[in-house]
Parts: sequence; structure tokens; C-alpha cells
Amino acid sequence: MAPSTTDRTTACGRFQNTESAIFEYTGYFMASSTIQRVKGTRDFYPEDWAYQKWLSNTCISLAKGFGYQEYEGPILEPMDLYLGKSSEEIVTQQTFTVADRDGKQLVLRPELTPTLARMIAQKEGELAFPVRWQSYGCFFRYERPQRGRGRAFYQWNIDLLGSEQATADAELITIACNLLKSLGLTPEHATVRINDRQGLEQHLVGQLGLTQDQVRPLFSVIDRIDKVDADRFRAQLCDLGLSAAQIDLLLGRLEDPDPSFSPWLQQIVSLVEQSGAGDYVQVDPKIVRGFDYYTSTVFEAWAKTSLRRAIFGGGRYDNLTLQVGGKKQVPGVGFAVGDMALAELLKEVNLAPVLPGTAPDLYVTVFSEELLAQSIAFAREIRNRGLAVELALEPGRRLDRQFKHADRKGIAYVAVLGPDEIERGVVVLKNLTTRSQVELDMQDLDAVVTHLKATPGQTA
Amino acid sequence: MAPSTTDRTTACGRFQNTESAIFEYTGYFMASSTIQRVKGTRDFYPEDWAYQKWLSNTCISLAKGFGYQEYEGPILEPMDLYLGKSSEEIVTQQTFTVADRDGKQLVLRPELTPTLARMIAQKEGELAFPVRWQSYGCFFRYERPQRGRGRAFYQWNIDLLGSEQATADAELITIACNLLKSLGLTPEHATVRINDRQGLEQHLVGQLGLTQDQVRPLFSVIDRIDKVDADRFRAQLCDLGLSAAQIDLLLGRLEDPDPSFSPWLQQIVSLVEQSGAGDYVQVDPKIVRGFDYYTSTVFEAWAKTSLRRAIFGGGRYDNLTLQVGGKKQVPGVGFAVGDMALAELLKEVNLAPVLPGTAPDLYVTVFSEELLAQSIAFAREIRNRGLAVELALEPGRRLDRQFKHADRKGIAYVAVLGPDEIERGVVVLKNLTTRSQVELDMQDLDAVVTHLKATPGQTA
Repeated sequence: MAPSTTDRTTACGRFQNTESAIFEYTGYFMASSTIQRVKGTRDFYPEDWAYQKWLSNTCISLAKGFGYQEYEGPILEPMDLYLGKSSEEIVTQQTFTVADRDGKQLVLRPELTPTLARMIAQKEGELAFPVRWQSYGCFFRYERPQRGRGRAFYQWNIDLLGSEQATADAELITIACNLLKSLGLTPEHATVRINDRQGLEQHLVGQLGLTQDQVRPLFSVIDRIDKVDADRFRAQLCDLGLSAAQIDLLLGRLEDPDPSFSPWLQQIVSLVEQSGAGDYVQVDPKIVRGFDYYTSTVFEAWAKTSLRRAIFGGGRYDNLTLQVGGKKQVPGVGFAVGDMALAELLKEVNLAPVLPGTAPDLYVTVFSEELLAQSIAFAREIRNRGLAVELALEPGRRLDRQFKHADRKGIAYVAVLGPDEIERGVVVLKNLTTRSQVELDMQDLDAVVTHLKATPGQTA
Repeated sequence: MAPSTTDRTTACGRFQNTESAIFEYTGYFMASSTIQRVKGTRDFYPEDWAYQKWLSNTCISLAKGFGYQEYEGPILEPMDLYLGKSSEEIVTQQTFTVADRDGKQLVLRPELTPTLARMIAQKEGELAFPVRWQSYGCFFRYERPQRGRGRAFYQWNIDLLGSEQATADAELITIACNLLKSLGLTPEHATVRINDRQGLEQHLVGQLGLTQDQVRPLFSVIDRIDKVDADRFRAQLCDLGLSAAQIDLLLGRLEDPDPSFSPWLQQIVSLVEQSGAGDYVQVDPKIVRGFDYYTSTVFEAWAKTSLRRAIFGGGRYDNLTLQVGGKKQVPGVGFAVGDMALAELLKEVNLAPVLPGTAPDLYVTVFSEELLAQSIAFAREIRNRGLAVELALEPGRRLDRQFKHADRKGIAYVAVLGPDEIERGVVVLKNLTTRSQVELDMQDLDAVVTHLKATPGQTA
């Protein structure tokens, strides 16, 4: 009896027939039958990874300036960490679930804030609040892959916990604005739109006569205002039981950037202005965010280019440590920036950085089998002095081919140690960009290093 | 009818009853009912993460010195990438499987080499071989968590592809030895044991009269030699059909560090000695590695302390790009270092580093609501000059409490900007370690920065 597909692919079973199993999932194969990566994931070749490192370093060093320490949580978390806290859409439709062999339901983390709340709740007695933390890591959401959106992405998270002061919210919003600025984006490219959910709720109940019960579904409708046309939006408000008069008042309120409905919001705007980031901030009562854990301040960075979408967002969440089982309420405020939407925006406005190459400083050629030991020793001495050195691997290869390889790799210098050089106790350093060369005393390695550092090569 | 558990927890279904679902998985709750992290995963608080960054930086900068560029692959990969290539134990028993909503079987990557082979195969026409690549990332294996082993761990991978020369193997083994050295480990703490699977196989067939068919199961038995006693090992060899005389010859060969059975191995040993890492290298024919893709050279770093276990390992794999569907055979050699066994060894021999704190350089106090703007502006100016500055958030808080908070955070300096200071145009910098203080001109911000940099604080 032939083994059934199920038998062959159960999580714990053995793979009886690996050859045929490999060729079964044809969806993963190109014409050449190379095994394909999973849809929505990315390979990062050295030049791609250099961009990712530049972006993460930009974020991390910005927040270090404000005293934020780096931390990290697990990529694999229990499903119950997100239930009833994250966005319902994310939890129910966008999680990758993982089979735990103990029968529990695990997920690949779709976001970091619940993990952060758990970590804070675990050590709430030991930490000196307020704590300022940041983290740069990878996350997973089962969404339809499209421009600026993948199923596996990187996200920078930054949070301040243990303060109820508006100064905390203003600090985070200032950092959000400074991120745009440090990426070279101007307020013409993107702004940070801010709102106060609690203030708006009180205003709608007090001034428009809505009930508390109407507000939460109303916020869900407002959260999608950009995805529906005006008529459909009015119809949805009507469905929630709002009168025509209430709808008119609401629409007026949502389009009005005056923060007077919320003294809290007024205070934050004023503090952000004092912090020098006022140019990037706009009050926008339409920003409510789809995450259930936000309690008052919410904000989103929006591209004003043809992208016209939210690039990143955050807000204040004052109850989350309690919701994950903590004993004490630890208020928090923070935001998260995904790498993919940001990359789209930077490309669109031509601000993607030209990064220096990652080629080593020197290529040490090998003249012959007999002289290999000399090249090994020379490469080692230069490395010991802090430079990056690639050593040729094929002793028999013609020197011009070795030069060509170094040139193709973008290495600025090659070192030649042939019989003539060895006899005279020198090394020849050839600059592949200028085609010039110098002879230096092989014993004077510091002079060699000085020469390599002084003359910028083609990768600098 | 009450919803069944299955209805509530299917991957794609909606969570109808989140409240009760949260309290259902009692296995994840402590007494305090804080949601627990998944078994075998870790939280990295800032001090833990500082260690991880130190370790990754140590690895990455070591290999940069040899010209290795950083890359990264997806964490989520198709199961068929590993089938018949990785260790059978890993594929069949240790993978975390992920439900793909398209019905395909995905896994959390248990190792990187097959991903690397796929990435190389995808661009084999574009890359300038040999390529030297390294990557530091996270991996998952469903193993029993124990000292030095978790279900989610970090691993450094370093590989050289496109060369069949022994110089390539020697370079990787030299880097493995240099890693031990750069972590402060001596050859008394750990050595790199090397072998040649192909040479050993030829020797066993030619000298001991084994058949080719006997060799692969024999290698599986040898791979577990440390896990069984001598009698059991002989019995296993007997089961494979070896005669008593063959067993005696084999045992003699396995215990003999003379590499003369393999000219390839002799050449590598000689090259590693020339590279200055000979002290750390030992020939050991018992090292065969459990991964099916290794073709000749194999090596493992072993702790010689009470740990007595392999810390990391690697080898040469010449057929892997073909196995993942590439058109061309691209030979490769490399190794991978997990963080957890290494951490155990460093702790055991007291070489875990004392890392500098991650506290900011300065804490700017806030005297009052009225003077908040001055503190904000001052903090901003110091940040703009490259220092890390934490700003107090509560304008009304007593100054001595603000000092105490800064001290608890390990911040060396506090800045005081009270009414008296503002009037006289100065700022007071207080060193919390020495309890001394200076007054500096508030306009001369460069002098402030120079002072903060010149006097090392408690975190230095």
C-alpha cells in the first residue's frame, strides 16, 4: 500500500519517501525546480542586508539618544497573549499558528507590545520606572503580499512604561518625528497625525449625545474611513444609530484639526513643539487605530506622497500589563515602525541611501604553492591590525585572474608577494581603481596599514 | 449549544469567546496568572540583550576581518528544503511546523545551510565565486530544553562557497579556532576536532574491507559513540556485520590522531598551523557529524571542561546546491555556532564578559512646570551633540527623587536647571558617583559635552 500524503507529512511522523515528497509541492518550484522561498518572505543578499542594517542602526541610535535600552522577546508566543488585546483582525485572520507538540496553540508574533507588557508584568517589582525600551526584530502576519507589505517583516518597537505624564507621549511623538527627519523626510513627505481617543470619546458622548456603547463600533468604522467612500461611510454611521444631525456634527469634528476638544492633546502638541518637532505634527481626529489596547493618545505617520498610507503608528496603552496578568497597572506609550512601508516611501521620494560596499580592504594574492605560507602570514598580520583581508584560495591561479576577481568583488587593493618581492623583502600594493602601485617594506606592517587606510579605494 | 474547543481554536476561525479562551490554557499561567512565555524560549531584558549583542558583534567582526559579508534568509521555510538533506533527527523530530493557509507545510528554520544553498543556487550565474558569507540569526528546534539547549536559539553561520581547495577548509577551521581565542578560551578549555569523512570512508573500505553500504550506517553509530558505553558500541558494530578483527582495527583507527589516512586532512592541518591556529586543532576520526550533506571535511569544537560536549561544528558540503534544485554544483564549507552551549562554557570557565552598562550619559532634571521648556531645550542640544540623554517626565517631582531615579538607572550625571541657574545662565552638572558638581555656562554646550565625556561615570 502506498503511504498516504497525510502519513508522510504529519508533524511528528517520519518521512518515508523523501525523494517523492520533495517533488510533490510543485507550488514551491521554479521552472528550474529550485526550491522556492515561502510567499511573503524575503532573502537578504549582502547588499539587501546592508540596507536593513542601515535602517535598524538609524532607528536604534536615534532612540539611544533619548536613553532607550535594547531588549528582545521570543518570536514564538502563546496565542492567548494576543486574544482580546491586539487588533481582532490580526489575531483571528493574520496569525501564523504553530503546532506545539504539547497541544497548545502557539503563534509567530504579529506584534511586540503584548510581549513587552508580559515582560514588564513579570518584573514589575524589580524595574526602576519609567523604563525606556526599544527593540528591532522580525514579525509575521498572514496578509496578502503586496507593495510595502510582506508576511515576514522587520519592525522597530519603542516604548516608555511607568509614566502617565503627557511628557511621555510628547517624547515618543517627538522621536517619531525625528525618525522621519533623520531619514531625510520633510513634512512635505510625511507627517505624524495625532489624536486622543479618550478625549474624542468624551466629546462625542458629551457634545453629540452618543452612548458609550456606540463609541467602540464607531471607532472601528472611523478606523476604516480611508477605505470607503463618503456615502458608504454615512451609511455605516447611520447603521450605528446616529442621526443625520449627529453625523454632520461628527464629520465636522473629524475634519477639524483644532485640538480644543482635548486639553490632553493640546498639552502634547505644545510639548512636541517645544521639542523642535512641531513641523511634523498634525492633529487629526480621524486617527483612532485598530488596536484594542490603546486608551488615549494615538498617532500615525502618514505618507503625503502618492503612497497616501500610514507608514507606522502607536499610542498610549494604560491597561495592558493588567490584561496579560500583571498585578499592577503600568501605563505605557509607544510605537512600532515596519521596514517595508518605510522602504516604499524612501524609494518613492528617492531617499533610499547609497550605502558603502561591504568589500574587505585588501585582497592578498597567492603567487604559487611554495609561496602560499608567506601570503597566509601577511594576511594574518594585516588582519591583526584591524583591517579586513580576503586571501586567494588557489595557489596555481594566474595573477591577472586574481586581480580580476578582487576587482569584481569591489576590493580596492591587492597585495602581491611573488619570488622577486620576497627576495627583496617588499610587498607590492596595487590600487585597482587608480591602477597605481607602491612597494613597501614587508617588515613595516604599520606603514602598509597606514597606506591602505589613507588612500580611499573604490568602495569608500 | 456551547462552542467546542476545536471551533474556538482553529487557525482560521474567529475567536467567539475570548475571555474564556484566555483562561483556558492554564498551563501558561503562573500562580499570579501572568501569561507565561513558551517553554524553551527566552526573554531578553536589556542586560541579557547586551550579552547577545556582544556575542554577535564578536563573531561578526572576527569574520569581517576575513572578508565575510553579512546576509540573512527567511525564518519561515518550506519543509522540503530540509527533507533528505539536514540531519534526519532534526527534520522528523525537531521541527516546529507552521500551518500555511494554502495547505503547504512550512517550518521554522532549524538551521541555515539549506537556505544558504537555495540563495546561492538562485543567483549562481550572478555571484563572483568564491563567496564568503556570514549571518547571525534565530533558529528553532523542538528539543527537550536543558542547560545549554533551548527551543529558540541564536546561531552564527559562516560559509565559503565556490572553492574546492583545502585552503578554504583551512580558512574556516582557522576562523573557528580564532573564535575560541577571541572569546578568551585557551586550548585547555576547548579545541577544534577535525576529520575527513571521505578519507575515512576510503580507508575503511580499502584497509578494513568494509563495503560502501556498511559505511553510512557505521557513521551514524560512530556519531553517537559518546552516548553509549564500549560494550554497547562493539555490539552495534557487530550488528552492522563487522568481524571482531575489523572492530579492533576500527577502534584503533578511531582513537589514533595520525591524519596519514587522508592526505586532504594532512594538508588542512598544515595550513591551519601556518595560519597560527595549530594549538587549537586536533585530528579526531570519531568526528563524523550527523548531517547528511557533509561530503569530506567535518569538524567540531569540543569543550574539555566538565561540559565535555560539542560546542559547535561544521564541514564541507559539495552537493547541496544541486540538492536544493540548483543547476550547477557549488562546493561549500562552513560552520554554525549556537549561542547557548557557548554561553554555558563561558560561564563555566568564568569568561562571561562584564559588559558596560547601557545607561544614557546624562539625566536632565525638570525643576518645575514653568521651567520644563528649558530642560527640554537643553536635553535636545546635548542629544544633537551625540550624547544619550534621559529627560525627567514629572515636572512636580522633588529634585532629590529625580537624582535617586538617575542613580538607580546607573546614569553618571544629572543636570540641574532651576530658577537660580536659569537666572545666572548656568547649568549644574552633578556626578552621582563622586558626588562632586560643576557649574558651566549654559550657552557653551560644547564645554558641557566635553565635561561629560572627559569624566567617566559609574557606568564606564
